Amino acid sequence: MDELNKQLDFIIELDKLKAIYRQALVKSDKNRFENSAEHSWHISLTAQILQEYAVENVNISRVMSMLLIHDIVEIDAGDMFAFSSATDLAEQEKKELTAAKRIFGLLPEEQFKSFQQLWVEFENAETIDARFAKAIDRILPLLQNMRNEGGSWARHNVAKSQVLERNKYLNHLAPQLWIYVCKQVELAVTQGWLRNE
Amino acid sequence: MDELNKQLDFIIELDKLKAIYRQALVKSDKNRFENSAEHSWHISLTAQILQEYAVENVNISRVMSMLLIHDIVEIDAGDMFAFSSATDLAEQEKKELTAAKRIFGLLPEEQFKSFQQLWVEFENAETIDARFAKAIDRILPLLQNMRNEGGSWARHNVAKSQVLERNKYLNHLAPQLWIYVCKQVELAVTQGWLRNE
Repeated sequence: MDELNKQLDFIIELDKLKAIYRQALVKSDKNRFENSAEHSWHISLTAQILQEYAVENVNISRVMSMLLIHDIVEIDAGDMFAFSSATDLAEQEKKELTAAKRIFGLLPEEQFKSFQQLWVEFENAETIDARFAKAIDRILPLLQNMRNEGGSWARHNVAKSQVLERNKYLNHLAPQLWIYVCKQVELAVTQGWLRNE
Repeated sequence: MDELNKQLDFIIELDKLKAIYRQALVKSDKNRFENSAEHSWHISLTAQILQEYAVENVNISRVMSMLLIHDIVEIDAGDMFAFSSATDLAEQEKKELTAAKRIFGLLPEEQFKSFQQLWVEFENAETIDARFAKAIDRILPLLQNMRNEGGSWARHNVAKSQVLERNKYLNHLAPQLWIYVCKQVELAVTQGWLRNE
């Protein structure tokens, strides 16, 4: 029962991700802030639906698992806006590493290692699966902002070049999605939702 | 681009599940009601973590996909408390069937069929994967209520026999989890969180 108790403690710990709020807004729920748990659900399904656009072979089950766990570290480290300063982002990276050890460390040894490895793989973005996962994580805020008058971009005065840089993984990995993103970014500029820089 | 546009419309439609609130409370976020999107995230990970307790061979990727999509119908049909009357539950079933056709129907034909089939499989609970998915969907509220002074059970005056009936899939499928559930239910009765009936 000791193994089971560890697993149940971890499962209960996960509840806390529902209290971590991001910069994205939920248009269908009175434009309240989105939390990282529901965001993780949304991008896992998004990856499944858009998998056909990856030009390299993607293991979609691994991608979905990565996306389900990638934000768990925010329970300790909090969420940081994607377009924060480089100093803040570097500091955040350290916090997240410590968080991963503590939170995944609640699990029995074998599962701890497996979750930790999957999370590190996502962070490093060196494998095809991790790159596709990251690309999907980044395309969803674009879809949300485009249907919400610029959403978090407009509120934070974000530039076109920042959004393109952030979505660059799509360029070689899913060119059809990259074309879509580029068109949307241009549209956002004409609408005044992104700075033309 | 027509296929992609359909997929993106579906992905945006999913946002609405974040506005569907359940009876469960999120203890770590001031005991607000839990929404069905973050719940779906939580149970998908729970299934992954507890898969070793299934005594029959479970395809965990299918189970996780089922759990990620099983509540999408609530966008149209709303959530219904598990221990509602039989008449209300039957009425809900009809609404969900119509909802599945409309919402999954936003997707291109092939994905529509695949999501619809997976959802029907979950609802019918006749395969091992579907039974394990249902068992996991039902064990999580127990874990949440046990750490929240009875939570939704206490508020709705639920009986021990109702909770045991609802978790019965675990009995043959994951006996170690079934033993755990039975012990927790007895504890809940002694705490006055469940009626002793």
